Amino acid sequence: MYGAGDVRIENVPDAHLIETTDALIAITRACVCGSDLWPYKKMEHSETGRNMGHELIGIVEAVGSDVRKVKPGQLVVAPFAFSDGTCIFCREGLHTSCIHGGFFGMEEVGGAQAEAVRVPWADGTLVVLPFDKDDALMASLLTLSDVMGTGHHAAVSARVSPGKTAAVVGDGAVGLCGVMAARRLCAEQIILMGRYPDRIALAKKFGATDIVSERGDEAIERVRELTHGLGAHSVLECVGLEQSTLTALSIVRPGGAVGRVGVPQEATIPAAQLSFFNNVTIAGGPAPVRAYIEELLPDVLDGKIEPGRVFDQVTNLDGVPDGYRAMDERKAIKVMIKL
Amino acid sequence: MYGAGDVRIENVPDAHLIETTDALIAITRACVCGSDLWPYKKMEHSETGRNMGHELIGIVEAVGSDVRKVKPGQLVVAPFAFSDGTCIFCREGLHTSCIHGGFFGMEEVGGAQAEAVRVPWADGTLVVLPFDKDDALMASLLTLSDVMGTGHHAAVSARVSPGKTAAVVGDGAVGLCGVMAARRLCAEQIILMGRYPDRIALAKKFGATDIVSERGDEAIERVRELTHGLGAHSVLECVGLEQSTLTALSIVRPGGAVGRVGVPQEATIPAAQLSFFNNVTIAGGPAPVRAYIEELLPDVLDGKIEPGRVFDQVTNLDGVPDGYRAMDERKAIKVMIKL
Repeated sequence: MYGAGDVRIENVPDAHLIETTDALIAITRACVCGSDLWPYKKMEHSETGRNMGHELIGIVEAVGSDVRKVKPGQLVVAPFAFSDGTCIFCREGLHTSCIHGGFFGMEEVGGAQAEAVRVPWADGTLVVLPFDKDDALMASLLTLSDVMGTGHHAAVSARVSPGKTAAVVGDGAVGLCGVMAARRLCAEQIILMGRYPDRIALAKKFGATDIVSERGDEAIERVRELTHGLGAHSVLECVGLEQSTLTALSIVRPGGAVGRVGVPQEATIPAAQLSFFNNVTIAGGPAPVRAYIEELLPDVLDGKIEPGRVFDQVTNLDGVPDGYRAMDERKAIKVMIKL
Repeated sequence: MYGAGDVRIENVPDAHLIETTDALIAITRACVCGSDLWPYKKMEHSETGRNMGHELIGIVEAVGSDVRKVKPGQLVVAPFAFSDGTCIFCREGLHTSCIHGGFFGMEEVGGAQAEAVRVPWADGTLVVLPFDKDDALMASLLTLSDVMGTGHHAAVSARVSPGKTAAVVGDGAVGLCGVMAARRLCAEQIILMGRYPDRIALAKKFGATDIVSERGDEAIERVRELTHGLGAHSVLECVGLEQSTLTALSIVRPGGAVGRVGVPQEATIPAAQLSFFNNVTIAGGPAPVRAYIEELLPDVLDGKIEPGRVFDQVTNLDGVPDGYRAMDERKAIKVMIKL
């Protein structure tokens, strides 16, 4: 990406092993993330550009001399953050704070919207998938890289639990996965704030019990009506704007929690006093997807959840710029890249 | 209070029963709260003034016809918020969000820096103390009205638990009670951010293991040194300013929690991105002190905790204006009013 709206497919030097703990992955599936749309909207022009993409499934092509668990030829899924798997934060399940970790698309680590990528800390980062290739499951498995784990993190951070009411702010792929995660955690009532018919239809399939399509104060009023005037126990903030955060903090019940997974686009959190006087908990952040893969993988393999349904377009590498455009214009929920 | 710095003792109409669920209390102990210092610094001049005070112990003088549990002659302690004890939030232990509740010092409910006060929802609000009068315990029992329960709420909201590191931002009476609460919840390391020798001495008696007296970035650096570069699992924010909140969010460990009990003086919470990327939980609010009285009372009666030591000045009603001044100038930690 060279700037807002400027995504190009280019030939770059081949990815290759650098550290002895690296793996080199030939990517078979990748996708465009809602968080990629922030720079797509706002990035200043750059002469050197920026590698994009951080969600991938692929085949291990080569591993460094210190890699023990991962072997060439295996099919693997990578979380959007790499992590050593051994530091104090990884051991606590917070892999996104790994002391030696980082994110794909930074300097010496390429992006996943590519043919191949170097994966640091291969043993800590990668999860081997228990079969060679299964096209039917591939879309759902790919969501374990980020979007399903992120929706799950929103639900966990918002303390969704059996019998409670959850509200989801944001009808993008993360919000839709948040609906599914809330259902999986046995929320009784699941309210999606959304307006696009295709997204609403999918949300209902994923478990949404109520849809709120109003905006602003009317939306807040509508959620209150749906919750006996009390607000939702759990609110999943899946956007990251000040306005969406304000909505989340306005519809959460006193003593409830907002789980935020939308990357904040502003420097402050609004409604400091409102949330204070209501004893609202604000939690969340980048999802420790690596920790969640092991929890969610069995449900994907069993077909209990089908998060891959958020992909409503499939393209190839050359189609990535169009994929960004389609998602930015809300013509696609999420675009899968098949290599 | 008629405005910033302008506290007057005046004769006002006698408090009296209004609702059938009220009790009339002859106050025997009250105090000045750190939160009273915000209007003392900033309140605009008012012709009618504002009743002050919300922490009290007293003798029940009369009760309304629907009061069942509380009887004339009993010694009672009141939390700073009144609550019906039966609504959905009271049953969940969040009495500060009681649907019929409110705070002392508002319109038809007087303040507790007075000879007597009408207490709404007497059965829900008041806790009968299991003896007539015991001067030695009175100071500690009075802290159950607010300051000890508030320090406890900060610790609970910051998820203090055995073996963890807690840091306390704010060396006022709430911060000192926060130290005590963290100790009571078995934190292993307790860091107080403070500079005043009398407060530091008390914090050490209450269980602080480390004192950080630096300011700004140096203070943050010092906490990092004390926590192996990681930050504190639990941070108790006991001030309410943007700067103190920023400090709290800068010294909390990734995946940790900030429990805020200082009434926010600004409209936003700073460091939205810092706290997001570190998966920091921000929790807390006005303490549901009514719920905590029953938990903390046995420890006060057993002498296991002595939060009453935060009172370093005792005065009578006429001395209240001087009490405000002393606390505002940090010449007193907390002033008790003895009637």
